[in-house]
Amino acid sequence: MSSSESVENECMCWAARDPSGLLSPHTITRRSVTTDDVSLTITHCGVCYADVIWSRNQHGDSKYPLVPGHEIAGIVTKVGPNVQRFKVGDHVGVGTYVNSCRECEYCNEGQEVNCAKGVFTFNGIDHDGSVTKGGYSSHIVVHERYCYKIPVDYPLESAAPLLCAGITVYAPMMRHNMNQPGKSLGVIGLGGLGHMAVKFGKAFGLSVTVFSTSISKKEEALNLLGAENFVISSDHDQMKALEKSLDFLVDTASGDHAFDPYMSLLKIAGTYVLVGFPSEIKISPANLNLGMRMLAGSVTGGTKITQQMLDFCAAHKIYPNIEVIPIQKINEALERVVKKDIKYRFVIDIKNSLK
Amino acid sequence: MSSSESVENECMCWAARDPSGLLSPHTITRRSVTTDDVSLTITHCGVCYADVIWSRNQHGDSKYPLVPGHEIAGIVTKVGPNVQRFKVGDHVGVGTYVNSCRECEYCNEGQEVNCAKGVFTFNGIDHDGSVTKGGYSSHIVVHERYCYKIPVDYPLESAAPLLCAGITVYAPMMRHNMNQPGKSLGVIGLGGLGHMAVKFGKAFGLSVTVFSTSISKKEEALNLLGAENFVISSDHDQMKALEKSLDFLVDTASGDHAFDPYMSLLKIAGTYVLVGFPSEIKISPANLNLGMRMLAGSVTGGTKITQQMLDFCAAHKIYPNIEVIPIQKINEALERVVKKDIKYRFVIDIKNSLK
Repeated sequence: MSSSESVENECMCWAARDPSGLLSPHTITRRSVTTDDVSLTITHCGVCYADVIWSRNQHGDSKYPLVPGHEIAGIVTKVGPNVQRFKVGDHVGVGTYVNSCRECEYCNEGQEVNCAKGVFTFNGIDHDGSVTKGGYSSHIVVHERYCYKIPVDYPLESAAPLLCAGITVYAPMMRHNMNQPGKSLGVIGLGGLGHMAVKFGKAFGLSVTVFSTSISKKEEALNLLGAENFVISSDHDQMKALEKSLDFLVDTASGDHAFDPYMSLLKIAGTYVLVGFPSEIKISPANLNLGMRMLAGSVTGGTKITQQMLDFCAAHKIYPNIEVIPIQKINEALERVVKKDIKYRFVIDIKNSLK
Repeated sequence: MSSSESVENECMCWAARDPSGLLSPHTITRRSVTTDDVSLTITHCGVCYADVIWSRNQHGDSKYPLVPGHEIAGIVTKVGPNVQRFKVGDHVGVGTYVNSCRECEYCNEGQEVNCAKGVFTFNGIDHDGSVTKGGYSSHIVVHERYCYKIPVDYPLESAAPLLCAGITVYAPMMRHNMNQPGKSLGVIGLGGLGHMAVKFGKAFGLSVTVFSTSISKKEEALNLLGAENFVISSDHDQMKALEKSLDFLVDTASGDHAFDPYMSLLKIAGTYVLVGFPSEIKISPANLNLGMRMLAGSVTGGTKITQQMLDFCAAHKIYPNIEVIPIQKINEALERVVKKDIKYRFVIDIKNSLK
């Protein structure tokens, strides 16, 4: 590595150093661009609950110093000689994974998220043994396969949250044919994922009912997000009135909750998609069997559908509701994520604050 | 009603009188054939676990005297003037329901099993307020819509168990596209339903693995039913070796069991169909979400798919394995059903024993 390359590979970032999860400025070294790589200046990075989990070692597998961030948007500054889809100046996104085997049945179908050798964007162990560092950083180098084109008229700060929150609801909604105008959708939980589920539901022509534990979200759900109906999930009468009325449910709730009260809202053969991670799923078999209902799980999506989602959002002018913050506010923001005090996604203005 | 009609409407049967569930000879009156009705001499009736449940008032809603039986095969003796599909002498079947509203979206699609006004074949309350009496009887009068053509070369005693055990596994297997040759199917539990799931799986060209708690079923599973693989579900090593290897699971187990050990055997996006009624379903969300797996419930099937199944069985020479008994052995048989001491379905020889 020449000395100019060495300087070029230096990367400013913010990292957690221990399970306190407190982030502070740090410097790492990114790899040089190889044949199939894209290097991008990161302009924005969304803040996902996963950033809290691994900063604070809540799964016990955090490798410090840990640089979070897997909702990355930026501008291409360099491409390897074999790169086909990107050129310098392109707007580009990176999501929750940066590598996979590229030869299994899932990779071959653009479903890399299911590859057994997939590598997460941060705190993952890449195929060369290095620990991956995420988007709370000035630049990143990624194989072009795991980069997405962000349409030029789509704001970079809006694109960032699509790369995890957006695709996590879009992928199962498409897989389970929820894009049928006139059908009805229930969205459980109105956070980063839930508010995107409402937006996609509206774009698909669905009639959307939001379920929340907090009346404080009613006004926004109906007037800002355009949901047709808002239900406090603890209100037995409201729930009862909706029995067997919904075609689809998307459950984005992060905490534990009962499943049967929601399951019984589905019509015959209705589909319940779970994207949250409660500690356990418990259902009465009668509720599932007699209604011939279906419960399906999902996590993010492959490269093919992720690109489709970005293009869909641009075409339909779907933008996440975000609060842009400088990197210096990240510790406070993570605290607010834990307290669910955010409507609906923080996005770090990396370009103007990480210096 | 004329006196000859009155005699014609008399029907011998065996009925339970109280929650002991003991059956004994009894006489009931069937309705006269009206415009759209088919009257059939019952030749055979299969014995389903439901017969135990309601004979013994295990759901607390039994109406005595109670005549069980919803796997009915017989021969048409009379048809109403509007009947189109049947004529005297035809072989005909009746399954788990004998009425529905005939105007809802489900009825219109031949999915009468989902109609909110569906009437069960026994212990149901029909639209005229009468309590329905099942197939442990000499004849039955049913609207032609709820009667099925049994192909003339298909044995009537074999047809009977198809009307509940058969359709209960066939319908979800078709709904969830399990008829894809070369894919792999796991069947949990090898009773009346499970052994039919194996037969359908083989007919669909699937590679079938049987999961059982009892080694005593191994020989038959492999040699008689033709399964490719047999696994004792308590054998951790055998289970572990099958991780992420199956496309589909059909769970016919009647008792409680853990779901996660089976769920983890499914490939990415695999489908788990539950047709049994354990007391509770408990799953780890990671097992569902990370594998993008799907859990679906089901009960029997509509009239359209039930007829398709009968025709499929005749075309592919699929016959349930049955033990034919006279009605006088029914109390002993129900005891053996409870003890799972049956390979694989009792069929009562009504014609030759109920006199």
